[in-house]
Amino acid sequence: MIVRDLNELMNTDRAVSDKQWTSVRMLLADDEMGFSFHITILQAGSEHTFHYKHHFESVYCISGKGSITDLGTGETHQIRPGVMYALNLHDQHTLRAEEELVMACCFNPPVTGTEVHREDGSYAPAD
Amino acid sequence: MIVRDLNELMNTDRAVSDKQWTSVRMLLADDEMGFSFHITILQAGSEHTFHYKHHFESVYCISGKGSITDLGTGETHQIRPGVMYALNLHDQHTLRAEEELVMACCFNPPVTGTEVHREDGSYAPAD
Repeated sequence: MIVRDLNELMNTDRAVSDKQWTSVRMLLADDEMGFSFHITILQAGSEHTFHYKHHFESVYCISGKGSITDLGTGETHQIRPGVMYALNLHDQHTLRAEEELVMACCFNPPVTGTEVHREDGSYAPAD
Repeated sequence: MIVRDLNELMNTDRAVSDKQWTSVRMLLADDEMGFSFHITILQAGSEHTFHYKHHFESVYCISGKGSITDLGTGETHQIRPGVMYALNLHDQHTLRAEEELVMACCFNPPVTGTEVHREDGSYAPAD
């Protein structure tokens, strides 16, 4: 059994930050669960465009307020605590945080922890 | 893109209840994400013994207070907001809710939604 505490991981290399977001990797590929699990915090007022061409991701809102626009369809959905979106079609999307958003994210295949967002908003495929 | 709201699913057949717990299935196998994602609420004062022999599960505490005992090692860990446990060894365990626990759970392989806990605390294997 693996037991980890977000608060303890916050100041370790499991907390990865980029432009106006921090993602704490609670589970990564080498934990061999078949998915990775992250708590991601997006700063109030920030906007993010991602396109996970090689991963499925689900994102559940624990706290905060924002919106997501599906760039394929143009549809916008409100993000509130209890709302989940799942990128089952590898949907390119823009996420906006009106208030700080705290999100629980699952990735399949699991993220290794060394990926960076490429210019097209994707992560490289898993090996 | 799939978008679902916990509050809307609460009174549908996606909310499954058993002895002193309710699990809302935000994502199931037929969503084809390769994992399932549930929000599970365990009543204050309740105790649960599970043994997912055929699944990996990670469980992240969103709110509440409790503990988990690994029945293989006898170790007990405190559960607080921000604590995650992952049953990477299909660990048999007892979860106790001192206060109501709200947990974000990922299963691999994904749960189909029709499983019931068997007498040994497991779910049947995926097809």
